[in-house]
Amino acid sequence: MSANLNVNANANNPAANGIITLLTDFGVSDPFVGVMKGAALSAFREATLVDLTHGIAPQDVAQAAFWLERSFRWFPRGAVHLAVVDPGVGSARAALAARAAGHFFVGPDNGILGAVLERANDGHHAHHAHHASEPEVRQIDVSALTGRLGLGPPSNTFHGRDVFAPAAALLASGAATLSELGPIRATVEPSPIPHPDVTPGRIEGVVVCIDRFGNLLANIGEASLVGLQRPRVQVAGIELHLAATYSTVASGDHVALVDSFGMLEIARRDGSAAATLGVAVGAKVVVIHDS
Amino acid sequence: MSANLNVNANANNPAANGIITLLTDFGVSDPFVGVMKGAALSAFREATLVDLTHGIAPQDVAQAAFWLERSFRWFPRGAVHLAVVDPGVGSARAALAARAAGHFFVGPDNGILGAVLERANDGHHAHHAHHASEPEVRQIDVSALTGRLGLGPPSNTFHGRDVFAPAAALLASGAATLSELGPIRATVEPSPIPHPDVTPGRIEGVVVCIDRFGNLLANIGEASLVGLQRPRVQVAGIELHLAATYSTVASGDHVALVDSFGMLEIARRDGSAAATLGVAVGAKVVVIHDS
Amino acid sequence: MSANLNVNANANNPAANGIITLLTDFGVSDPFVGVMKGAALSAFREATLVDLTHGIAPQDVAQAAFWLERSFRWFPRGAVHLAVVDPGVGSARAALAARAAGHFFVGPDNGILGAVLERANDGHHAHHAHHASEPEVRQIDVSALTGRLGLGPPSNTFHGRDVFAPAAALLASGAATLSELGPIRATVEPSPIPHPDVTPGRIEGVVVCIDRFGNLLANIGEASLVGLQRPRVQVAGIELHLAATYSTVASGDHVALVDSFGMLEIARRDGSAAATLGVAVGAKVVVIHDS
Repeated sequence: MSANLNVNANANNPAANGIITLLTDFGVSDPFVGVMKGAALSAFREATLVDLTHGIAPQDVAQAAFWLERSFRWFPRGAVHLAVVDPGVGSARAALAARAAGHFFVGPDNGILGAVLERANDGHHAHHAHHASEPEVRQIDVSALTGRLGLGPPSNTFHGRDVFAPAAALLASGAATLSELGPIRATVEPSPIPHPDVTPGRIEGVVVCIDRFGNLLANIGEASLVGLQRPRVQVAGIELHLAATYSTVASGDHVALVDSFGMLEIARRDGSAAATLGVAVGAKVVVIHDS
Repeated sequence: MSANLNVNANANNPAANGIITLLTDFGVSDPFVGVMKGAALSAFREATLVDLTHGIAPQDVAQAAFWLERSFRWFPRGAVHLAVVDPGVGSARAALAARAAGHFFVGPDNGILGAVLERANDGHHAHHAHHASEPEVRQIDVSALTGRLGLGPPSNTFHGRDVFAPAAALLASGAATLSELGPIRATVEPSPIPHPDVTPGRIEGVVVCIDRFGNLLANIGEASLVGLQRPRVQVAGIELHLAATYSTVASGDHVALVDSFGMLEIARRDGSAAATLGVAVGAKVVVIHDS
Repeated sequence: MSANLNVNANANNPAANGIITLLTDFGVSDPFVGVMKGAALSAFREATLVDLTHGIAPQDVAQAAFWLERSFRWFPRGAVHLAVVDPGVGSARAALAARAAGHFFVGPDNGILGAVLERANDGHHAHHAHHASEPEVRQIDVSALTGRLGLGPPSNTFHGRDVFAPAAALLASGAATLSELGPIRATVEPSPIPHPDVTPGRIEGVVVCIDRFGNLLANIGEASLVGLQRPRVQVAGIELHLAATYSTVASGDHVALVDSFGMLEIARRDGSAAATLGVAVGAKVVVIHDS
């Protein structure tokens, strides 16, 4: 079966490499993630399963889309990325499988794959330059999938286990090609991450995530910051210069910088910016500049 | 050595497949789970280790027994399921290894394996029909185990690392058969999960778990709900009809349904039923019906 | 390339075995750990990745050093232990790779490896007696490392992903020997864990960690407790005898014992000692005795 896949594989569209990453809002206090892994291993015993995170805020598709797009390129090309934040489970929303930027993606059609599909061809942060081909998106034929694997009909409430993990396993193993999972899907839900508003002298964005350390991550990427004259970052009533690293400010001071994922971040050295600034996801972040 | 195992293996009693799942109340903020995995890898370098969950409430054997029984069938047959919630560590409670429903189980004799052993032959939620054989339970001969592996005597407080993980590794690798781990154990602690009280027109149960989303999971399985006339679910002073999926109610409304693990669940769409209903584990859940 | 490694390997200095453990303060609510694993798999597809814990309190190097030293010996010799609590990331602090007690270690030079390197030759808690050789510490040549792997220059804020995970992967795969990672580092930052103050009849230490169960772990090891006459443990205004196991006291009572990692622990049976005693990390713990 993998011969099929290899026929399609080339430098731009590598074959699946057996790795499956998992990104959900399931948390780790219940066995939901474990059971998803059981479903994946039932279809592909040799899968290499890697947690991306399960700490996405419940039903926060934008946060999931943000981290998926920022994270996937750090894995070897040919990995399958399984992303399940799925408030519409049990409704008519489609199940998707896709290839973009040399990686595979599986998840619901609710925007969670939107950022990946929109930015796949930017080549942003790629370690190795490739002439990437266009993303290819398929709608998973669920009854064909479950029939092929001998599974019962999916539950109404847990497609991560019943649809997405088995589909990811088939892709990751090479037992199914992308095209074997279902028909082309011409349009998909766009990313729920708002685009920053860019006007002369001003970029206006929002806080998309707050990480464990209380750092604020904005929807403003480094590409839009390059070459600005005297950029200043305004958030929660304070204004900061753009720095290169945390260590340019004293302990306890706030600092704005481009973080290691290429996004504008507001931090507090040795502390939590979110706590001291009283900022939540959705708060306005503005970059003003002279040119 | 694995030849021994294969002699005993057949469709009902498959050989170990190298997978070890882990279910504990250790949390993930300390290295206890990591060290258990180290002990398993020390005995079986090629083990495939999968976290079921480590978020069981401290010492809550009933919650662990519930999730173990609901979860194990989603893994390939032949997996070893290591379950350690062990308030009696250091006392005289026995260490068990068992085979049931085509899977292996390792854990303390405190009821944590009770639900699995009681329900193993129900065939509930099994993907593939098998004529399951009777469960087989062994009492682990701890000194023989540690002697065989060249380990020191077990600590008084961490048998997950010193007894259960090494035993699971031996089983998972095929280096030891179940019978080589110790003598038959004729009686085991029963499951601490209460059975629902079934009377004409009424099933009375309790909330066993509350998941990350604030959904209430009761000790009432779908088998007891099939065919009821006009079932209504009463909890915390409200009454709900039994629905098929979350999306049958409006955002913010409560809903009762059979969840993806086959149990009665009370949820709040896009919210936490536990928070709005003020319900904790142990709260009464009643299903009333006309027939 | 692994031939090089094998030339150096012997009973005291075993070859890398492909296992990489991960210990960080990154938590599990963000994808930072997942992305580190992606970086490791990008350099060594066959790595066996095991989380030790990611729940170290943010920037608490002492807690990380404590758990690393207590935990590593439970893994097979030849494992690579990746420890990243790195408040100085982006500053001039060195990146280290080391071999001690038959294991490999990778992390920043801020004391996180201090306890391991200081105690490596104690043979404490080792399962198998070996005549351990002296620890060997190398300073990672970062530009050689990234050049060799075709990586871009490291970010200023995430060396776990950009330096330490790739270095650990090279070591774990056998593609690089320790000496190939960089020059000998003659001095390293000492462990930040305070040494207990030992005077006649008295050992004075502090609480280094509080675990998930609210147990207090002190910087007083079993070696210093052996043979004491009538030892009593004083903490938070109470005095306890040294017991062998939790079950020697009644439910709700406090107990002092040597824990399964060989350290003095103060616990409350079926409860949280930290909560009832109102004790935090850094609190004084005193052992008094008659001899």
